[in-house]
Amino acid sequence: MMQFSSKLIEEAVAQIAKLPGIGKKTALRLALHLLKQDEPFTQTLAEALLRLRREIQYCQVCHHISDAPTCSICQNSQRDRSLLCVVESSQDVLAIESTAQYKGIYHVLGGIISPIEGISPADIQIDSLLSRFPSPEIKEVIFALSATMEGDTTTFYITKKLKPFEVKVSTIARGIPIGSELEYADEITLGRSIIGRTEYE
Amino acid sequence: MMQFSSKLIEEAVAQIAKLPGIGKKTALRLALHLLKQDEPFTQTLAEALLRLRREIQYCQVCHHISDAPTCSICQNSQRDRSLLCVVESSQDVLAIESTAQYKGIYHVLGGIISPIEGISPADIQIDSLLSRFPSPEIKEVIFALSATMEGDTTTFYITKKLKPFEVKVSTIARGIPIGSELEYADEITLGRSIIGRTEYE
Repeated sequence: MMQFSSKLIEEAVAQIAKLPGIGKKTALRLALHLLKQDEPFTQTLAEALLRLRREIQYCQVCHHISDAPTCSICQNSQRDRSLLCVVESSQDVLAIESTAQYKGIYHVLGGIISPIEGISPADIQIDSLLSRFPSPEIKEVIFALSATMEGDTTTFYITKKLKPFEVKVSTIARGIPIGSELEYADEITLGRSIIGRTEYE
Repeated sequence: MMQFSSKLIEEAVAQIAKLPGIGKKTALRLALHLLKQDEPFTQTLAEALLRLRREIQYCQVCHHISDAPTCSICQNSQRDRSLLCVVESSQDVLAIESTAQYKGIYHVLGGIISPIEGISPADIQIDSLLSRFPSPEIKEVIFALSATMEGDTTTFYITKKLKPFEVKVSTIARGIPIGSELEYADEITLGRSIIGRTEYE
């Protein structure tokens, strides 16, 4: 057990250690780092966290995190509105954006269907996704959900609901990660990579 | 480069990523985690950091971080005042306290002598250490500084200054870490562990 001899340190460490992936030791290191910096350093950090939490909005179109009622991606006239990518979370949007390979728009579900965790279709943004159809613009819906049973279930469920709108549906490729050796791939991934093989150009 | 599409996220990530050992990806993960929690979660965290930075004091006797003008260790009548352990930082005090092997008192130097980094004896709490002598209570000064040239220099410098007070001086043992295999020890550590061998009981 760690001894602190200071309630102030103890409380700061307790709060920092509530963050995911941060243990008591790291929390202590961070707290002591703050003490080594001048007061504005901590003030700027605390204010940035509070402002983020208080002022963040969720885009009323795609539910991505946003500084305004409509997010900068939905507002951007340069984006290709014929492609709609369905993701679980805003984090996934940021991950796809950082690839710079996708110029379409998004829909953030805010979760995936999971009977085990008690998350039903009504708990996530499926109705609002369906309300975007029929659409004069969207030609293809790309599902970019986790390659898990929950992800596959969610893709299957929504695809069925999209049937009446006759929109093209695709999923991101499953396969061997780039730079990964074949012998370390699990057999399910390997199997799907063979089924989903692409023509060599 | 990471794209954020939200100034609020961008600013929060920038501030979090200023903390040591936290990169932009981890910072983003933490920021998004805050968004998933209710507002009081972020508020409690921000307040703990601000209170820590604003209200922390440094013990006027030993310079350890403290909630009061004198720290809880210096105030504790159960501590053995014949032993004074000299350390570089409050973090070292906390590390030694968590071993539960030491019941003496401390002196926190707030740095070690380093000509390369321009830290001279006058920059650290050496004068205030010497002002604790002659002492009717302190019988032994234990140096618990890093096993580096800077640590050794600091120990050497202070030891010379302590000569007139005829107090016993010791350093913590250097040797093979517990659980470590001999073949992986560097030769200097191994050499010192032979010179500093202890009688087998």
